[in-house]
Amino acid sequence: MSHHNSGRTSPRRRKADRRRTSPGTAPGTIVVDPNAALTSIQIIGFSSTQMIEVTLNDVGQIATYLGKWPTLWIDITGLGSAETIRGIGELLGLHPLALEDVVNVHQRSKVDTFRDYLFVVARMIELNDSINTEQISFFLKKGLVVSFQERPGDCWEPVRQRLRQSRGRIRELGADHLLYALLDSIVDSYFPAMDFVSDQVDSLDEAITRGTTPDQMHSVHTLRGQLLTLRRAIRPHREMVNELIRDEHDMVTNETRVFLRDCYDHVMQVVDLVDTYREMTADLRDFYLSTVSNRMNEVMKVLTIMSTIFIPMSFVAGVYGMNFDANSPWNMPELHWALGYPFAWAIMLSIAIGLLVFFRRRKWI
Amino acid sequence: MSHHNSGRTSPRRRKADRRRTSPGTAPGTIVVDPNAALTSIQIIGFSSTQMIEVTLNDVGQIATYLGKWPTLWIDITGLGSAETIRGIGELLGLHPLALEDVVNVHQRSKVDTFRDYLFVVARMIELNDSINTEQISFFLKKGLVVSFQERPGDCWEPVRQRLRQSRGRIRELGADHLLYALLDSIVDSYFPAMDFVSDQVDSLDEAITRGTTPDQMHSVHTLRGQLLTLRRAIRPHREMVNELIRDEHDMVTNETRVFLRDCYDHVMQVVDLVDTYREMTADLRDFYLSTVSNRMNEVMKVLTIMSTIFIPMSFVAGVYGMNFDANSPWNMPELHWALGYPFAWAIMLSIAIGLLVFFRRRKWI
Amino acid sequence: MSHHNSGRTSPRRRKADRRRTSPGTAPGTIVVDPNAALTSIQIIGFSSTQMIEVTLNDVGQIATYLGKWPTLWIDITGLGSAETIRGIGELLGLHPLALEDVVNVHQRSKVDTFRDYLFVVARMIELNDSINTEQISFFLKKGLVVSFQERPGDCWEPVRQRLRQSRGRIRELGADHLLYALLDSIVDSYFPAMDFVSDQVDSLDEAITRGTTPDQMHSVHTLRGQLLTLRRAIRPHREMVNELIRDEHDMVTNETRVFLRDCYDHVMQVVDLVDTYREMTADLRDFYLSTVSNRMNEVMKVLTIMSTIFIPMSFVAGVYGMNFDANSPWNMPELHWALGYPFAWAIMLSIAIGLLVFFRRRKWI
Amino acid sequence: MSHHNSGRTSPRRRKADRRRTSPGTAPGTIVVDPNAALTSIQIIGFSSTQMIEVTLNDVGQIATYLGKWPTLWIDITGLGSAETIRGIGELLGLHPLALEDVVNVHQRSKVDTFRDYLFVVARMIELNDSINTEQISFFLKKGLVVSFQERPGDCWEPVRQRLRQSRGRIRELGADHLLYALLDSIVDSYFPAMDFVSDQVDSLDEAITRGTTPDQMHSVHTLRGQLLTLRRAIRPHREMVNELIRDEHDMVTNETRVFLRDCYDHVMQVVDLVDTYREMTADLRDFYLSTVSNRMNEVMKVLTIMSTIFIPMSFVAGVYGMNFDANSPWNMPELHWALGYPFAWAIMLSIAIGLLVFFRRRKWI
Amino acid sequence: MSHHNSGRTSPRRRKADRRRTSPGTAPGTIVVDPNAALTSIQIIGFSSTQMIEVTLNDVGQIATYLGKWPTLWIDITGLGSAETIRGIGELLGLHPLALEDVVNVHQRSKVDTFRDYLFVVARMIELNDSINTEQISFFLKKGLVVSFQERPGDCWEPVRQRLRQSRGRIRELGADHLLYALLDSIVDSYFPAMDFVSDQVDSLDEAITRGTTPDQMHSVHTLRGQLLTLRRAIRPHREMVNELIRDEHDMVTNETRVFLRDCYDHVMQVVDLVDTYREMTADLRDFYLSTVSNRMNEVMKVLTIMSTIFIPMSFVAGVYGMNFDANSPWNMPELHWALGYPFAWAIMLSIAIGLLVFFRRRKWI
Repeated sequence: MSHHNSGRTSPRRRKADRRRTSPGTAPGTIVVDPNAALTSIQIIGFSSTQMIEVTLNDVGQIATYLGKWPTLWIDITGLGSAETIRGIGELLGLHPLALEDVVNVHQRSKVDTFRDYLFVVARMIELNDSINTEQISFFLKKGLVVSFQERPGDCWEPVRQRLRQSRGRIRELGADHLLYALLDSIVDSYFPAMDFVSDQVDSLDEAITRGTTPDQMHSVHTLRGQLLTLRRAIRPHREMVNELIRDEHDMVTNETRVFLRDCYDHVMQVVDLVDTYREMTADLRDFYLSTVSNRMNEVMKVLTIMSTIFIPMSFVAGVYGMNFDANSPWNMPELHWALGYPFAWAIMLSIAIGLLVFFRRRKWI
Repeated sequence: MSHHNSGRTSPRRRKADRRRTSPGTAPGTIVVDPNAALTSIQIIGFSSTQMIEVTLNDVGQIATYLGKWPTLWIDITGLGSAETIRGIGELLGLHPLALEDVVNVHQRSKVDTFRDYLFVVARMIELNDSINTEQISFFLKKGLVVSFQERPGDCWEPVRQRLRQSRGRIRELGADHLLYALLDSIVDSYFPAMDFVSDQVDSLDEAITRGTTPDQMHSVHTLRGQLLTLRRAIRPHREMVNELIRDEHDMVTNETRVFLRDCYDHVMQVVDLVDTYREMTADLRDFYLSTVSNRMNEVMKVLTIMSTIFIPMSFVAGVYGMNFDANSPWNMPELHWALGYPFAWAIMLSIAIGLLVFFRRRKWI
Repeated sequence: MSHHNSGRTSPRRRKADRRRTSPGTAPGTIVVDPNAALTSIQIIGFSSTQMIEVTLNDVGQIATYLGKWPTLWIDITGLGSAETIRGIGELLGLHPLALEDVVNVHQRSKVDTFRDYLFVVARMIELNDSINTEQISFFLKKGLVVSFQERPGDCWEPVRQRLRQSRGRIRELGADHLLYALLDSIVDSYFPAMDFVSDQVDSLDEAITRGTTPDQMHSVHTLRGQLLTLRRAIRPHREMVNELIRDEHDMVTNETRVFLRDCYDHVMQVVDLVDTYREMTADLRDFYLSTVSNRMNEVMKVLTIMSTIFIPMSFVAGVYGMNFDANSPWNMPELHWALGYPFAWAIMLSIAIGLLVFFRRRKWI
Repeated sequence: MSHHNSGRTSPRRRKADRRRTSPGTAPGTIVVDPNAALTSIQIIGFSSTQMIEVTLNDVGQIATYLGKWPTLWIDITGLGSAETIRGIGELLGLHPLALEDVVNVHQRSKVDTFRDYLFVVARMIELNDSINTEQISFFLKKGLVVSFQERPGDCWEPVRQRLRQSRGRIRELGADHLLYALLDSIVDSYFPAMDFVSDQVDSLDEAITRGTTPDQMHSVHTLRGQLLTLRRAIRPHREMVNELIRDEHDMVTNETRVFLRDCYDHVMQVVDLVDTYREMTADLRDFYLSTVSNRMNEVMKVLTIMSTIFIPMSFVAGVYGMNFDANSPWNMPELHWALGYPFAWAIMLSIAIGLLVFFRRRKWI
Repeated sequence: MSHHNSGRTSPRRRKADRRRTSPGTAPGTIVVDPNAALTSIQIIGFSSTQMIEVTLNDVGQIATYLGKWPTLWIDITGLGSAETIRGIGELLGLHPLALEDVVNVHQRSKVDTFRDYLFVVARMIELNDSINTEQISFFLKKGLVVSFQERPGDCWEPVRQRLRQSRGRIRELGADHLLYALLDSIVDSYFPAMDFVSDQVDSLDEAITRGTTPDQMHSVHTLRGQLLTLRRAIRPHREMVNELIRDEHDMVTNETRVFLRDCYDHVMQVVDLVDTYREMTADLRDFYLSTVSNRMNEVMKVLTIMSTIFIPMSFVAGVYGMNFDANSPWNMPELHWALGYPFAWAIMLSIAIGLLVFFRRRKWI
């Protein structure tokens, strides 16, 4: 418990769980990451006819909105203020263990069922140069959704627009439907990442077919790492949505269940794609290696052919470059033949031609 | 939700899910792909004694056929017209989420159970130069099958022929049997693809045994990618057919269940084959690589043998090509021996023979 | 449905599903493979005291034996005659879908339960030069076993002998026990194939340890393909036997269930062996490749040592073979030294010895 | 059924199932392996106060001990005598199928439940130079344990000692506890084999780190084969012990169940270790191959550096060894320069230094 | 049973199960490892208002504390004294099999349910230079937790601090909550090890990208071995915590169950991370090998280019170094041409340029 995440400025920060408080701290203690973003609170309350949208500075003000709207959405961005989070927890009667999970942003996606509320953890995908994940935590109570985001910037603007413009039946369908809409937007945020991966796989495939360079291997390796990150994020998501569908509390209506089932299908699509791309990149890697191996083979063949042909010819030339005395008839009589030089060429050429025939037979050339 | 698929003209278009509308659009919104094929409607109504076959231009005309025939099949081809699809949805009371899945053609095969109808998604295989998949969506209501195809061209002509000629009991067995017949035709469309793969595996196997070329590796790589596509299409199919068999609504009769069980066996056959071919291509790749490695070894041996024999001989020739003055008895007395030249040859030949013996002992030649 | 299998004369015919009739043919249509073997019918009827064994030419004659014997075994060999098969189906009231599966000989092993009979598919192993499988189909009705074989030649002669000689209690135990005896013989037919594989794995292991040749890799590759064939045949067998044991119809007596459990243990043994041999051949392949790699390394070392030693020595000889004028004291004074030649040898030998020491230190020699 | 195992004298006898009687023999036929060890019978009867230990020659004598002792252990060693085994079967009313499994010593570990007895098969490990397995079969009846061993020599001496010395409560706890004690001893016999494997993995790991030799690969390969043997033996063991714990007959008391659960934990430990060692040896193999590859790389670098430096230098020396006439000012004027020889050395050395700088930049030296 | 662990002084002691007493010793016999640490006993008793902390020398003294405190924690460190352990077992009525598992420190994590107490085994991680595991055993009775540690030094100081300072509700929540707090601290002890692995993976990744060295492969290999150790430790942990949650005895209160569920989430996080890092190191290994392979390829290219260019040029130089008599017009007329030397250079340069063009075309340079 109580694993807070100190800020590392290193650019290559693995998304893994790091720098927690020392093991053994009391469970339910909320220790915020000192480098976490500042906390801001946005409140959206709506009925089928009306809607309010307020940004608050103080937790105390939340109380004035509770119970005033059929559905209330409290959206907290930035986990830098322990008091704010503790305050919300006390105001709404949330379990300290759940609040601790809110600030320790390395949870797997999950649903924890408490007596009169659900605690839901999900992971949003952020696709900049690389693929990062951000933990989003939800509490679902009757008529109330509380969401916690790690950092400013989310994928929910279209949901807010739908609320503002009262498009579809979103303003009529209550808190559980709002939670569904937010979760569905999160799942949708995976698809651009999948497209990014797909494009990279495609272009690497074509590039390797054209010719290998060492940085292709590096790209494949990086891609595989990103797919591991994606897989670690999306797999628990599947179980989480499934648990919401099977939820036996009456927090989720049957109508919303139909929508969640649709959301589940989309999660399955992502899981499928991630697995497929993991296999595709493995295939790419093997293809790369075999292409390198083929090319090496070709290089070796050229070396072998050139060396094998010229080394014996050079030897013959070397022999007739020896300086043995002409005072003995045994010593290099060839040098004194009238056709000695053509004779040497004949030897050399027949060696060359013989070897070329040999190589042709072996189908090396 | 609302992932529409803009048309890319690139020939190597991955079958993955691409170019959706921006995440967060209201669920159930039908946004058609602007490049999708134009929508055409064919209606086939039949009883055991009669049959009608009409092509319509307008959704409104469908209403006149509803309820007039024991079994009605509405076959919509091309998903380019949002109004048509929305119109059919309103006419038949279909859920917007299901209609959205109809136009977002990257669903996994599945059965979604609604109160008085089933929504079924399947993937048909198209085998041209490469292997493509096409999403087919069905709605099964009492006495009614609605099917949506992405593009013109399908594998259902034999079913239509059987209906026209009233072969078998197809005209007697109702809408659920018609759905079965259509699904079974889809499963049958996988077998030519499997044969195509099988032929390629066979010919690659033989070709690699005869001698490796780099494009073989490329073929194996492409084949593996196609098998991934096939696997991603057929695996959810299995669950889908299984769910139809286990369907607890009374949409599917016991008699049709027997047929669906047979269809399930065929799906299992395809799943089996795809898995087997994935393993076969992995084996092929390993076989290819080891063959390349063997050949490299052979090339290296020839190079080594030739170099190793001639390099020392050339050295000897080089030594007797040195120009040391004969003014000292220490300087190259061999050059002045009567048998100096034969002596040099003797040295060179014994080096060559010694090395040949050495190689023979190591079983390199 | 209706996938018939046209005869290919090619010797390397993959056991995969091929050349079916065009997709969409009416389910239950029996389209025989024109190259299938001719159909012959053998009838064996027996009670604990009597037995009859007849070969028939005509389906019509079967009717005269039905109901006359406590247990009747109709054994049809060769699937070339559609009329015969259709005739038997009509006579015994068998479902067209099952009969279709009889002639489309690429089914997975399975049990299909019909109202008053079971339809069982199994695969027999034929071990000639390579490993082939043959589909065997059974119908089990009260007092009746019907078996369909693809080709003449089976592994049931011992069962017939036991029936003829009334050895054991086989003549007392009814049709379900006869089915068990036939299935058990089929499972037994896998063991010689496993022995064949085991022998090949052993001899390849020893051969590779002695020294690698390219055809070993080919053998390993072929063996792996055969193990895939075996696995694809035996895995569904396991489920099939298990389903027979769990069969809730009263087609199978408790006494036979004990025997089937024993048969299941044998199937499990084969499944285990096939999986083990797949892993063993994978290990063999890796062993082969590492042995080749080791050998390549050794070849390279010899090349490197020889080249590296003689190339600098040849260079020295080359230097003293240069023809610079002796008219300058700077020009090759060594050539005029009294000990010039021994000096050159000293340089060359110290190079050689230095390199040999270097290689020895690196443990290359 | 009826797979007997003829004796092969070959030292490298795979533990696989071999040389059975021809398929199709009547089930339940006991055909002993002619090379099986002679059969000897030991009887141990005990109560909490008394104990008897007798070695018999004749099956007939067993009857005199039946029912005389609260717990009787009949231990048959050597499966060479079909009469003895058949005799015991008749005396105790054992099913022929079970007796057949006793002599066909390639069964997987299992529990078969019969009306008033259990039939249990287990595999003992024998660790000599290599790892072998031996089938042990048990029958558990009320007050009676019958055990069949393939060969003399077992791991049960400590159990016998505990019985003789009445250590612990073993003499009080009945036949099911005796069976547990024997099974537990068998599981314990796996641990020395695991230690043997662990030692080999450790020493191979260290040896490869120090330097690779081809026989290391052979050792890894052999080890992987032995782990396959171990895995094939221990995995069914797990299910077997589990089935004994879940046994619904009242053959096993609750008190013994606690002990069996402990035994199950030990089996799981072995399963875990075998799987871990399989992965460790796979890692070892990869480590070996990469080490070989690294070393090859180093060899190649030395070759390349030496060749690349000296080949151009030799070329220069070759050029000035050409014999062009000095009668033209174009023909090799360098030879007549006063500083021609130093000039040649300057060229050669600058080539050498340039290449050394190039290699240094590429970090090859 | 009764596997004690003799002390090996070797520094590289695998964490595997070793040096047990000979198989067959009576189950429940406690044979301590002679090299095990000395046993010391610490007692912590607490109520919501009071707390006592005592270190005892003698087992006998424990009895005086039993039943005096609402919750009592007996913490035994060092398993060197068989009497102490036996004494505690007798005092508290613990099963000999469980006590045996306490001293045989190679158990998998597990929960064994006895009538009035639970026996829990867990593995703590110790991260020094390498990753080691230590077995921790617990007994949970009403109001009592007994813990056994292998060695002094644990991760529980924060728990003791919380008890001393009465932070949180830990002093109010009873023995089951204390067990949870201890288990949770153990799970927390995995995270620093995961961070250590993560750092190593990161730095290896960067290092390989910069340039390969053979010791990187060694590091990857070692890391993979440590991950196997971690996986073997954490996987059974998951089942153990899950079993505690599902425990049907009333040993664990519903309130503690909520905390255990949170602990389970953390275990799942570790399991996830271990699996991810296993895959990452596999990817690293492949990346390393392909980088080596790429580099080899580059080395070979340089060798090939240099050799291939200079070998034919040297041959030409060799030809004109031959000593054929000028007495025949056929013998090396070039040597007497006025432009013979430039002619030779022309030949040599055109060979060089031709080959450079050839290489450029092949994209080798």
